Amino acid sequence: MSRIAYFGPSGTFTEQAARVLARGRELVAVETIPAALTAVRKGETDLACVPVENSVEGPVTATLDGLAEDTPLVAVAEALLPVHFTVLTRGGTDPVRTVASHPHALAQVRHWLEHNLPDAEPVVASSTAAAAVGVRDGRYDAAVTAPVAVETYPLHVFADGVADVPDARTRFLLLGPPGPLPEPTGADRTSIVAAAANRTGALAELLGELASRGINLTRLDARPLKGNYGYYRFFLDFEGHLSEARVGNALAALRRRCEVRFLGSHPRADGVRATVAAAATDEDFAAASRWVDAVRSGELA
Amino acid sequence: MSRIAYFGPSGTFTEQAARVLARGRELVAVETIPAALTAVRKGETDLACVPVENSVEGPVTATLDGLAEDTPLVAVAEALLPVHFTVLTRGGTDPVRTVASHPHALAQVRHWLEHNLPDAEPVVASSTAAAAVGVRDGRYDAAVTAPVAVETYPLHVFADGVADVPDARTRFLLLGPPGPLPEPTGADRTSIVAAAANRTGALAELLGELASRGINLTRLDARPLKGNYGYYRFFLDFEGHLSEARVGNALAALRRRCEVRFLGSHPRADGVRATVAAAATDEDFAAASRWVDAVRSGELA
Repeated sequence: MSRIAYFGPSGTFTEQAARVLARGRELVAVETIPAALTAVRKGETDLACVPVENSVEGPVTATLDGLAEDTPLVAVAEALLPVHFTVLTRGGTDPVRTVASHPHALAQVRHWLEHNLPDAEPVVASSTAAAAVGVRDGRYDAAVTAPVAVETYPLHVFADGVADVPDARTRFLLLGPPGPLPEPTGADRTSIVAAAANRTGALAELLGELASRGINLTRLDARPLKGNYGYYRFFLDFEGHLSEARVGNALAALRRRCEVRFLGSHPRADGVRATVAAAATDEDFAAASRWVDAVRSGELA
Repeated sequence: MSRIAYFGPSGTFTEQAARVLARGRELVAVETIPAALTAVRKGETDLACVPVENSVEGPVTATLDGLAEDTPLVAVAEALLPVHFTVLTRGGTDPVRTVASHPHALAQVRHWLEHNLPDAEPVVASSTAAAAVGVRDGRYDAAVTAPVAVETYPLHVFADGVADVPDARTRFLLLGPPGPLPEPTGADRTSIVAAAANRTGALAELLGELASRGINLTRLDARPLKGNYGYYRFFLDFEGHLSEARVGNALAALRRRCEVRFLGSHPRADGVRATVAAAATDEDFAAASRWVDAVRSGELA
């Protein structure tokens, strides 16, 4: 059976995303994001599920750096989860004196805790799931966890749907080795990483190659190159599928200018269909190409 | 005496940065980044010192979001610290069984721990300084801390200069209310946040306004707008000072296109002098302006 390595432990948001993307595949928890990528690179699993961006915390730098280096991996699917926490206790009527979670989770429910558990002391744990283990074992009174945690750790649901920022979301990627691309759907996302020259206007030129072909950018993250402070690589996500003319044409233009690594074309989890600017459809590109061929052959001018 | 609120507690990297920037001012530790910004906005302190980017972990989203919202604050200075950790113990010959720190710090010394303290269990703490307190109080055997921590917590220096990524750095800003800008030095950085329209090419156009004026971008971070998933604001850092013609001219052009907030012009901590592209000096701008005036008045064509 096909297997997915996910950034664990069991009972976290990444497990929840991996379940969404699993389609019957076996899930294997690994300890870190690099370990999940390594599992696929070594062929120990077929796929890996890792977070890539959170609307509150920003980009997941371990995922971005891990995709830019070492042997290539490509995203074949994505999942978008609302960041709504569940607060778990052992039940009963004892007051909640300590509430544990990963520091990022505690930061995202700070206001809720002030209003609902003002007397509970926040305690940091290594993951939301580790906090649930601590509640089960009697070390903490409450844990702020992913909704899925209650399935692994059958505790009492003290509260659910907890979030200071109601529309916070995390996006997760399902990554595999290079191979046939997922079919285009009209609502696709293409991702690349480009190492542009460190000179005035370099990034503006790269983005101009996308804009001039009517391609809508959906995300841009600049990451410093290790060992080279002040130099950056750019992670670009944009609408469209590599099988489409405007995307293929733009990637060829970028490839002439700088080092580019393809990180995948796959359906968007939110189903938002691509905006294709005027004069940027496949037929526009094909007709323009036919015209150039005709001029070259002397048929037209 | 003038006071600086810094993201504490005492004994952290931010205290170390605040000391670099203090110039005799009193330092006041506050609990969170938003609290440091609020202290200045309410006039409780004159300035605030907070981290803005780490070369391994990426942008400090609490700082970026805090600068884009609420009443404006501007950066008047910056500090750049190498992320080299000190490992503190109580001394003596007992084996180190637990090593505590903030999860980000533990992540950045993972390889060092595997090689030098392979039998020590990593334990998460709420800050590097909290880990030092835990060692002092006997709860942990070792703490991974900022070098400055040993001054607040006089423990035994087990190791220093510890870092898996030897050139990792964190940049810190000294922020105050809007006022007279620091003098230009020729090695300055200007920062803005711009909310571009969500349409194809919008970011390429903004960056084109900088590039066409010979302005070298030094950092770009896209942050999602709260309550509006898929919409972003862009934090841009570039070379030059607002008092220079090319920077003022570019900011006016951006202001025509979108909402812009000025986040400061101040000397770069690394002293790197601005690259000014051909035809982009103050004299170039002045001469071109004189020519347009002369044409308008009918003296030249």
